[in-house]
Amino acid sequence: MNYEVVDTLISPEGRLEVLSKAEVAKLLDTSKGGLYNIFRKCALAVLNCGSSIDDGKELLERYSSFDIKVIQRERGIKLDIRGAPAMAFVDGKMIKGIHEHLFAVLRDIVYVHFEVTENPKFNLASPEDITDAVFHILRNANVLQPQRNPNLVVCWGGHSINRIEYNYSKEVGYALGLRELDICTGCGPGAMKGPMKGAAIGHSKQRRDGGRYLGISEPGIIAAESPNPIVNDLVIMPDIEKRLEAFVRTGHGICVFPGGAGTAEEILYILGILLHPDNAEMPFPLIFTGPATASEYFEQIDGFIAQTLGPRAQARYKVIIDDPDAVAKEMQAGIKQVREFRKARSDAYYFNWLLRIDPEFQKPFKPTHENVRNLKLHKNQDTHLLAANLRRAFSAVVAGNVKEEGIRAIEEFGKYEIQGESEIMGPMDALLASFVEQSRMKLPGKAYVPCYTIVK
Amino acid sequence: MNYEVVDTLISPEGRLEVLSKAEVAKLLDTSKGGLYNIFRKCALAVLNCGSSIDDGKELLERYSSFDIKVIQRERGIKLDIRGAPAMAFVDGKMIKGIHEHLFAVLRDIVYVHFEVTENPKFNLASPEDITDAVFHILRNANVLQPQRNPNLVVCWGGHSINRIEYNYSKEVGYALGLRELDICTGCGPGAMKGPMKGAAIGHSKQRRDGGRYLGISEPGIIAAESPNPIVNDLVIMPDIEKRLEAFVRTGHGICVFPGGAGTAEEILYILGILLHPDNAEMPFPLIFTGPATASEYFEQIDGFIAQTLGPRAQARYKVIIDDPDAVAKEMQAGIKQVREFRKARSDAYYFNWLLRIDPEFQKPFKPTHENVRNLKLHKNQDTHLLAANLRRAFSAVVAGNVKEEGIRAIEEFGKYEIQGESEIMGPMDALLASFVEQSRMKLPGKAYVPCYTIVK
Amino acid sequence: MNYEVVDTLISPEGRLEVLSKAEVAKLLDTSKGGLYNIFRKCALAVLNCGSSIDDGKELLERYSSFDIKVIQRERGIKLDIRGAPAMAFVDGKMIKGIHEHLFAVLRDIVYVHFEVTENPKFNLASPEDITDAVFHILRNANVLQPQRNPNLVVCWGGHSINRIEYNYSKEVGYALGLRELDICTGCGPGAMKGPMKGAAIGHSKQRRDGGRYLGISEPGIIAAESPNPIVNDLVIMPDIEKRLEAFVRTGHGICVFPGGAGTAEEILYILGILLHPDNAEMPFPLIFTGPATASEYFEQIDGFIAQTLGPRAQARYKVIIDDPDAVAKEMQAGIKQVREFRKARSDAYYFNWLLRIDPEFQKPFKPTHENVRNLKLHKNQDTHLLAANLRRAFSAVVAGNVKEEGIRAIEEFGKYEIQGESEIMGPMDALLASFVEQSRMKLPGKAYVPCYTIVK
Amino acid sequence: MNYEVVDTLISPEGRLEVLSKAEVAKLLDTSKGGLYNIFRKCALAVLNCGSSIDDGKELLERYSSFDIKVIQRERGIKLDIRGAPAMAFVDGKMIKGIHEHLFAVLRDIVYVHFEVTENPKFNLASPEDITDAVFHILRNANVLQPQRNPNLVVCWGGHSINRIEYNYSKEVGYALGLRELDICTGCGPGAMKGPMKGAAIGHSKQRRDGGRYLGISEPGIIAAESPNPIVNDLVIMPDIEKRLEAFVRTGHGICVFPGGAGTAEEILYILGILLHPDNAEMPFPLIFTGPATASEYFEQIDGFIAQTLGPRAQARYKVIIDDPDAVAKEMQAGIKQVREFRKARSDAYYFNWLLRIDPEFQKPFKPTHENVRNLKLHKNQDTHLLAANLRRAFSAVVAGNVKEEGIRAIEEFGKYEIQGESEIMGPMDALLASFVEQSRMKLPGKAYVPCYTIVK
Repeated sequence: MNYEVVDTLISPEGRLEVLSKAEVAKLLDTSKGGLYNIFRKCALAVLNCGSSIDDGKELLERYSSFDIKVIQRERGIKLDIRGAPAMAFVDGKMIKGIHEHLFAVLRDIVYVHFEVTENPKFNLASPEDITDAVFHILRNANVLQPQRNPNLVVCWGGHSINRIEYNYSKEVGYALGLRELDICTGCGPGAMKGPMKGAAIGHSKQRRDGGRYLGISEPGIIAAESPNPIVNDLVIMPDIEKRLEAFVRTGHGICVFPGGAGTAEEILYILGILLHPDNAEMPFPLIFTGPATASEYFEQIDGFIAQTLGPRAQARYKVIIDDPDAVAKEMQAGIKQVREFRKARSDAYYFNWLLRIDPEFQKPFKPTHENVRNLKLHKNQDTHLLAANLRRAFSAVVAGNVKEEGIRAIEEFGKYEIQGESEIMGPMDALLASFVEQSRMKLPGKAYVPCYTIVK
Repeated sequence: MNYEVVDTLISPEGRLEVLSKAEVAKLLDTSKGGLYNIFRKCALAVLNCGSSIDDGKELLERYSSFDIKVIQRERGIKLDIRGAPAMAFVDGKMIKGIHEHLFAVLRDIVYVHFEVTENPKFNLASPEDITDAVFHILRNANVLQPQRNPNLVVCWGGHSINRIEYNYSKEVGYALGLRELDICTGCGPGAMKGPMKGAAIGHSKQRRDGGRYLGISEPGIIAAESPNPIVNDLVIMPDIEKRLEAFVRTGHGICVFPGGAGTAEEILYILGILLHPDNAEMPFPLIFTGPATASEYFEQIDGFIAQTLGPRAQARYKVIIDDPDAVAKEMQAGIKQVREFRKARSDAYYFNWLLRIDPEFQKPFKPTHENVRNLKLHKNQDTHLLAANLRRAFSAVVAGNVKEEGIRAIEEFGKYEIQGESEIMGPMDALLASFVEQSRMKLPGKAYVPCYTIVK
Repeated sequence: MNYEVVDTLISPEGRLEVLSKAEVAKLLDTSKGGLYNIFRKCALAVLNCGSSIDDGKELLERYSSFDIKVIQRERGIKLDIRGAPAMAFVDGKMIKGIHEHLFAVLRDIVYVHFEVTENPKFNLASPEDITDAVFHILRNANVLQPQRNPNLVVCWGGHSINRIEYNYSKEVGYALGLRELDICTGCGPGAMKGPMKGAAIGHSKQRRDGGRYLGISEPGIIAAESPNPIVNDLVIMPDIEKRLEAFVRTGHGICVFPGGAGTAEEILYILGILLHPDNAEMPFPLIFTGPATASEYFEQIDGFIAQTLGPRAQARYKVIIDDPDAVAKEMQAGIKQVREFRKARSDAYYFNWLLRIDPEFQKPFKPTHENVRNLKLHKNQDTHLLAANLRRAFSAVVAGNVKEEGIRAIEEFGKYEIQGESEIMGPMDALLASFVEQSRMKLPGKAYVPCYTIVK
Repeated sequence: MNYEVVDTLISPEGRLEVLSKAEVAKLLDTSKGGLYNIFRKCALAVLNCGSSIDDGKELLERYSSFDIKVIQRERGIKLDIRGAPAMAFVDGKMIKGIHEHLFAVLRDIVYVHFEVTENPKFNLASPEDITDAVFHILRNANVLQPQRNPNLVVCWGGHSINRIEYNYSKEVGYALGLRELDICTGCGPGAMKGPMKGAAIGHSKQRRDGGRYLGISEPGIIAAESPNPIVNDLVIMPDIEKRLEAFVRTGHGICVFPGGAGTAEEILYILGILLHPDNAEMPFPLIFTGPATASEYFEQIDGFIAQTLGPRAQARYKVIIDDPDAVAKEMQAGIKQVREFRKARSDAYYFNWLLRIDPEFQKPFKPTHENVRNLKLHKNQDTHLLAANLRRAFSAVVAGNVKEEGIRAIEEFGKYEIQGESEIMGPMDALLASFVEQSRMKLPGKAYVPCYTIVK
């Protein structure tokens, strides 16, 4: 099958990037140490926005001739793009939102390489330094804005949800937008796009010109969850764990819509952190919500949490079914508490320094078959550490489902084997099975072949 | 039944209105010559936005205690509002878009009274002066913006359309918005709201901050078609005919979605004008469009035009079914021609001075029973004059359906009697009957009782 | 002698003017009822900015081939200008400030003609209507800005002052600007330019982007006092009296620098108004100030006021010599009182509705020889009426010195004869003589021939 | 003597700085490795703006109780300031321009420390890395603005010049500003302030809102040349050599006014660079200008260059006496050539990458007595290297005159001994003597005691 492509030459517009000669050279360097490959991959994902494809490997194969080069001109840099997916263009001209995203990708890839990964100043084995690196990347992306009141609602949920759930997520976004709350998601379609669209209409009615639609991604997932052009602040974090840390340190509350393995990963991440004893006093609004048809789904999730992490975890969230206004009001009230808490402690509104994140949630987890097999999934450990390990298990399922690297690993070595205590494996198996049954694992249209087996 | 109401005190924000003492006094004057009543009526309509009510009389009765007063303060005027519909507020605070609309209403009512109606300078029986009055009202409302390229698409269509048609109108708006075209409608729900919502998302993806959503209303219709808060430029013209003239002199092309009697009125208005011999050379993109399910509807409309106005009229529009991108491209191409035409003649992009509008289309038509009965509906006259009379017939039906005055007249004197040549009455009867059958006359939920009889 | 001229074609930039066909026609109409002549005269004055010429007649003769025409184009109007003074251009391109002023002149001349002079709505014999007309002209020029705190300091003083006085006026402007006060003057050089230049530097240090430099002129004086391009809000009032009313209704305090007959006229105007019994309670900061070298000058002024209007008049102002910071602090304190006074009475900050201006100060005074001869200059009348007549006497001297019409009258009929009670004529003669001696009557470089004789 | 001081607490306003915890800690660290001392010193210099003091040591002694601390609050950082010079305040409120400068100082000191000095990525012995460091510091300060046409004129000249020269520098600035050229200087009074004031008035007349007044300083000189608050972009480079490199890589042309040793240093720097064979083809407008009274001064300078560097050096500049318009036109024409040159080579407009700067001009020169004594001041070397050594000799004189460190060294070890070939030492002695005679070494009011002896 052939896909239509376009060649073009673009200059930065919204954001004015200035690169040094060394930075340009690195972006053109196609060797292993160079940045060409990662930039090309992320740029392609951004350009692919709007297509119904959630498979990083397939995307790269589909547009194999795609090429992107930085060139230096007297007024600054330009991007010379060949073989780009035609859907990023309207009548031959690139959509401005996508245009901006390309330069955001460029900015973050350069910064992360030169100032974080290759900068001996950061010891990425130290928890403080990881947090500092997250801070620096976000600051460089101009995401940390002082002088603003807390108002950023992180919306999590599946990229593959049905029309009713999608419309519901728009209505929640609308109710949040009318209350001048901003939205942050992981980019991508489904529950990550709906709230932004709704908020855009709400903001427009409130004449909120500076409304923020923050998307936080990472190179591994961006191909499967390419940012919707409504996103007007895009950041590419270097890995999943820093992406998750970015969500919880910049967001002032979290709203979880129905989703699959990725959503489960996110829920376990935030609960694991909130269960850390040092965070016991910290307010953090966390709402699970969906339309009436999703009520059973949240019972399952709630049940799984009850069986694995117990009632202390359950106390940290609220389930609200089919009531967008109630969600928005609850969120607003929760954020008010966040504001008072930080004010009392002089902690920044734009970065939650006080939140304690255990190193277990910061260390990048590489979902090799061996690492997955060795996960400690039993109750003989602190609850927040069990949450950390459960999080990793779901993370592996996401990788096997949609990430280029994971898909290749499954192709080569077969399914991941997830094993552990049966009191945990049982509920987990049930939960994953229900995701499969409800088509939450992949975009509809293909039969889902699980990438895992539960070894009970 | 009781309706929730709110009291509030607001200052201008988006627009900064400055009033003289005489102007304030007139707005507080509840006598017949004063402006209090008309201001109150229009303000209530604006505040009622979003409710499913399209009946001016019902609205006034529902909020009978509603009151609005201008007060003068050291930093400028404020509005003291009592008994306002609660739906205009979010958690007790008025939605900013509605807030702006109230001040737009104020601005236009003051200007029209002091500078147009009561200004001996304007002879409102003279065609030139009517056009000049339209120009002055629009200029005062800051709607005439020089230095811009032509890009304003007027969207007409019914306020009562089904979900499929509504979603289609959003998709057309999205395709227009992606091409950086702006939208003008008559305010209200349905086909007047969909294109704006779609364009808002399209503009947001194109980072088009200055996107315009122009709404043009008049005191008689605003209660039935209250402006959606997305409208960011609202003008209240003094009557239907000046409102229609405002559409065709500011818009650069027209897109017609399915609708009822009001839409038919608008179609006859624009065709009647374009059929005037002086306008024969003038480009004016006019597209009738809808989803696949509306294809039969447009066949009826097209048939009615063929039978009454003939092939010359049919040559002035194009019907495009189920293809939003094609609509947007066709409109863009048509507007390019408009631009070239005006450039060649140094006619303003922001006001179509060259368009010849026959006085028959400018004179206000009062739908009394007698006037309706006396309409000349036969082919023994110039085609554009027949169009003018047909336009009036449909205008009467709109009045009888949704306008306070018309509804009261029907209550008192019974149905309008529309009579004329059978070759015209036949198709007209059929067309109206199909509108009734398709629930296009009124918002759904009530049985429709026709306000007219066709006397063949 | 030949003066360099330039031809050019310009479009509105800062302000976007939109004209109707009738308005354009009137501006091109060179007949007596047309606006061509007045527009040409004012436009030439604006373009002549920066030259050392204060004689309206001489200016018109010097650039006799000057022509300016409004033309209508598809993006709005343009001005086709021929034979313009070269000093308005830098390397062939018109200075933007002057460019803006031309369109301000256009705006006001059109508005005053169509909406004021020729509008039967305004009865220009009625005090209320005169004030309303002033209000409408200022509102149309966008000068009345609600939501701002009072901060507008009117600076009066001579156009012909020495370098020390000029530098002092800059320092006062700087001290006002550092305190974020804005400046309003009558345009022109000398004491009308210095405070603006000083304030511009003060505002720049305070990063006050929206600093206002309001110039208020009228067609008779503009040739002699052409607006400095720093003026970023220019209004052309129809006559002297409305110009003076505009100063005192928009300004929040007045600072008077040394000057000649025009300054004396202004001082008598404001004192006459403040002496009206109805204004007895109204705070109105009025400061006379100059460098040490001007101390004798202010003693003369103060003496003249003592001898003619008496101690009640003297109580309304303060003389501060050689202390810019003290002037600025005193002004700030006075404006604070103005703010409290208006707040307590809900009177607008942007327009002093409560100030009572006696009709004697509103009626245009035409300085014919007969009118001057008949002025009632004796103490047998209310003090504020004596002030009104003294004001007229000085106004005539200004006309005879610098206005085209006045100069022509003197050429034809000889000097004005000013007569009255000797207790008034004596001090007046002395004051005028001192103005002549100090070269305050005309720009230096020419011998001054008085246009008046005092008949004692 | 006692100096009035003020305590205050300020938040960033113009610039929104966000600091990490580590950065705040470093700024509070008063130990040798900490940033407290340098920040305090530079902040004090910024606050001292406007005073007639050009002696870093004296300044620190005068405000010995001055203290400045960064504190973290929920909306971002604040500065807690004690004992600040009262002249930075108007009625107790800090002047906004100075307020901005404090945060610019903060930004650069943090960036230089964390990202340059302490960043192993930069090898500050390598020419490429030095240039890269200059690039990074300027980029971080948001000084490198792509999409702009070349228009930045660097103005050099003395801080101690007479009133006639100062007024002339204002007139040149005005002529540049009218042509929409921007100004860059080294901050400080005299020839570094005049052009900015003039340009501010020129820009205001041209309604140039985004006019840039770029000041480039370094910690050693800032106390003697504290930035005028008109400067709206301030950068603190780490040392003299990087400051000079910043001037020549960001500026598009240079205008030199009369000055003393510092000005001579700057002239030798730019000539030395332009004499490098690799720069032979590069256009670089360089104009020496002053009022008629400065004509002899420039003859001396020109003679000195003729005697030391020869006619090739003389060919790189033009001397224009008493003609601001000619200076502005010549500069404009030269910048046009710069633009074409860079466009043809795709070199950035905002950073002159192609300019070859010999390492001799990049290496920081420490003016110890020994280093000064060992300078190679003879003609037996490449001309551009002789220029480099002459530059160092004048640099030492500047240090001995006004820099804290230099003054202390002279106090301890006596005068610098400058020695070399007599053909060079003769002219140098004469030139320095004329600077002394013309009071160009120090601000007037104190007798100048030379800090050097010429050993012939």
